[in-house]
Amino acid sequence: MHETFMRRAISLAERGRGHTAPNPLVGAVLVRDGKIIGEGFHAFYGGLHAERAALEDCFQRGLSPAGASLYVTLEPCCHTGKQPPCTEAILAADIRAVFVGSSDPNPLVAGKGIAALRQGGIAVTEHVSESACDALNAPFFHHIRTGLPFVLLKYAMTLDGKTACASGASRWITGEAAREEVHRTRAAVGAVMVGINTVLQDDPLLTCRIPGGRNPLRVVCDSGLRTPLDSALVKTAAEVPTLLACCVSDTARHEAYLAAGCEVLTFPGRRVDLRALLTSLGARGINEVLVEGGAELGWALLSAGLVQRVQAYIAPKLFGGKNAPSALGGTGVPYPIDAFALKNMHIRSFGADVRIEGDL
Amino acid sequence: MHETFMRRAISLAERGRGHTAPNPLVGAVLVRDGKIIGEGFHAFYGGLHAERAALEDCFQRGLSPAGASLYVTLEPCCHTGKQPPCTEAILAADIRAVFVGSSDPNPLVAGKGIAALRQGGIAVTEHVSESACDALNAPFFHHIRTGLPFVLLKYAMTLDGKTACASGASRWITGEAAREEVHRTRAAVGAVMVGINTVLQDDPLLTCRIPGGRNPLRVVCDSGLRTPLDSALVKTAAEVPTLLACCVSDTARHEAYLAAGCEVLTFPGRRVDLRALLTSLGARGINEVLVEGGAELGWALLSAGLVQRVQAYIAPKLFGGKNAPSALGGTGVPYPIDAFALKNMHIRSFGADVRIEGDL
Ligand SMILES: NC(=O)c1ccc[n+]([C@@H]2O[C@H](COP(=O)([O-])OP(=O)(O)OC[C@H]3O[C@@H](n4cnc5c(N)ncnc54)[C@H](OP(=O)(O)O)[C@@H]3O)[C@@H](O)[C@H]2O)c1
Ligand SMILES: NC(=O)c1ccc[n+]([C@@H]2O[C@H](COP(=O)([O-])OP(=O)(O)OC[C@H]3O[C@@H](n4cnc5c(N)ncnc54)[C@H](OP(=O)(O)O)[C@@H]3O)[C@@H](O)[C@H]2O)c1
Repeated sequence: MHETFMRRAISLAERGRGHTAPNPLVGAVLVRDGKIIGEGFHAFYGGLHAERAALEDCFQRGLSPAGASLYVTLEPCCHTGKQPPCTEAILAADIRAVFVGSSDPNPLVAGKGIAALRQGGIAVTEHVSESACDALNAPFFHHIRTGLPFVLLKYAMTLDGKTACASGASRWITGEAAREEVHRTRAAVGAVMVGINTVLQDDPLLTCRIPGGRNPLRVVCDSGLRTPLDSALVKTAAEVPTLLACCVSDTARHEAYLAAGCEVLTFPGRRVDLRALLTSLGARGINEVLVEGGAELGWALLSAGLVQRVQAYIAPKLFGGKNAPSALGGTGVPYPIDAFALKNMHIRSFGADVRIEGDL
Repeated sequence: MHETFMRRAISLAERGRGHTAPNPLVGAVLVRDGKIIGEGFHAFYGGLHAERAALEDCFQRGLSPAGASLYVTLEPCCHTGKQPPCTEAILAADIRAVFVGSSDPNPLVAGKGIAALRQGGIAVTEHVSESACDALNAPFFHHIRTGLPFVLLKYAMTLDGKTACASGASRWITGEAAREEVHRTRAAVGAVMVGINTVLQDDPLLTCRIPGGRNPLRVVCDSGLRTPLDSALVKTAAEVPTLLACCVSDTARHEAYLAAGCEVLTFPGRRVDLRALLTSLGARGINEVLVEGGAELGWALLSAGLVQRVQAYIAPKLFGGKNAPSALGGTGVPYPIDAFALKNMHIRSFGADVRIEGDL
């Protein structure tokens, strides 16, 4: 029973995906006599919290939340941010019992919301479908804990492990359905990132081309500022936020990019400091970054311990080619025993393609 | 109803896997009043055909097959081979109706068994669960049609598409359950094949190490006869059939291998003629060959149109490495549009590993 309502709260929470960062996804369901009398979710950053949205929905239905149970995927807040504390609204609404999924990840806050509810005489049950609720907000939790965005490394390969032909050509490997899912993923993240070689080779646009989708910030790791001024990225930089991360301190060389609408971020050294870059993205409230290639950037991030999840889209085809690239470059690990291990493997089909996903 | 009994017949047929070549897998079920009164399958080459085995089982149960229906995965034979014609046994047993899955793939025989039954007054229904029955014997059908063995290309790779580390080390990529399944596959095929580099690099044994499993013929493509005399293959050649395919016509160089128990097959030219090699394997009754590496041999077979099925075991790990090999070498296709397309994709988990299988 509890799980059923929490599952509903989780699926409500999902509807906010891509719109709440740096806030988490949260869903809430009000239940009386085994019936749902109000539902809500955190729909966008700065908007109503899920608990208040559910209360609002209940009132709109002409019902009273008094004596009801509240299922909420994340511990209610007890501090004033963009919105007043949810604990107050819950107490004011005369809720009898609260079922909580995830705990507040901020250790300074964790437990305080629950304590406030208990103090107000509400029966609180914690850890309801906790792992499913936690999974909903993996990027948010990671961001809160580390200050860095959650990094999702995605690539498309053939069943023989190639991400391009020996000629370098890589369009297209996967079919429509898989590519559409990638666009949905773009809509859900704060930024997409690529290495300069991918820009030079593929000239990608990296926008979200699904109706109603949001464009993430586009980030290029381009130590030497080699991104062509006539690349799709630069040409659309006036409309879609575009960040060039480089090691070129000569600001005269930044000007044409700035004029085109790009942002240029300069790091010391000869190669972009990926941890520093991610820290700066995290600091501006981006809690998830989708890395879309190529093999060198992917390996650099992985070997620096900066990747949290991998998504391999696998197409039902074979390219062959000793010199055709595969998904990760660099030096690689010396022996199988040194491999980076993945857990929580998930398999899903998109048209004829298969996506295998795993966490580091 | 019909499908249920045919499914049963198919699962009986499966029990012969690895033991019937060059004959097909066949299962049969006798049914009266909706109840199974006899079951059988072709258990080994030279043994009872499935139809006679089912009749035998029926008699053993003290029952009579008279008036029963027979479900059989393959059209009953009407000619005398190692066994007398099944059509005669069916007619003699006074069977009322016969349901047939696959047609006899030999165009000279196809339909004759069914005609004989009809002539005898039996109602015959063809094409019952035909595609499932056909799938059971894909190697057999391919072998009958082309004279060549069905070639199953198998490899293990990481989720980033590597079949070995940049160092060349590749043990182990997959876990216990996947490796055990490979041993089951070895038990089911007539031969396993590898390229010489795989022998030099990995020194594999290529035997079937599951209880009761049969060892397939081990074949090495080794143009220059470089297989080490102290390799695991040569050292065990007295017990396990081992064939070296080479282009060394100087028979003095064959002697040590022959003495160790290997068979040596010589082809003209500078590289083993793979089609000629497969033709010779087909001619000796081998209807399925499992190719276990490496990348060069795999590509050579694929690009020559000699591969029918691919099995990729994918481990939940990442090796990285620009120079780490992936599953297929050679020149590869120039553009994505030229890719070898796979169909009938099947996904199955073995422990933490995933196997993706597809047909060419
Ligand atoms: N199938 C797929 O999913 C897919 C997706 C994308 C791309 N691709 C293919 O991948 C290929 C490009 O991949 P690639 O591996 O050659 O290059 P890449 O990863 O796209 O770019 C690598 C470059 O990024 C720059 N970079 C800046 N900071 C870096 C850092 N800290 N660590 C590593 N690199 C840094 C470096 O050049 P600077 O030092 O000059 O900045 C480096 O050479 C193309 O052929 C493309 O088609 C395939
Ligand atoms: N992960 C896996 O599933 C797996 C499985 C097996 C191997 N491996 C790895 O793969 C690597 C070996 O693969 P590889 O690609 O280097 O070599 P390979 O495919 O094992 O052997 C290639 C060699 O086979 C010989 N050959 C004979 N006739 C041939 C023909 N008609 N066409 C092509 N080759 C022919 C050639 O040498 P000659 O001309 O001298 O005969 C050729 O160089 C090893 O590192 C091994 O660990 C991985």
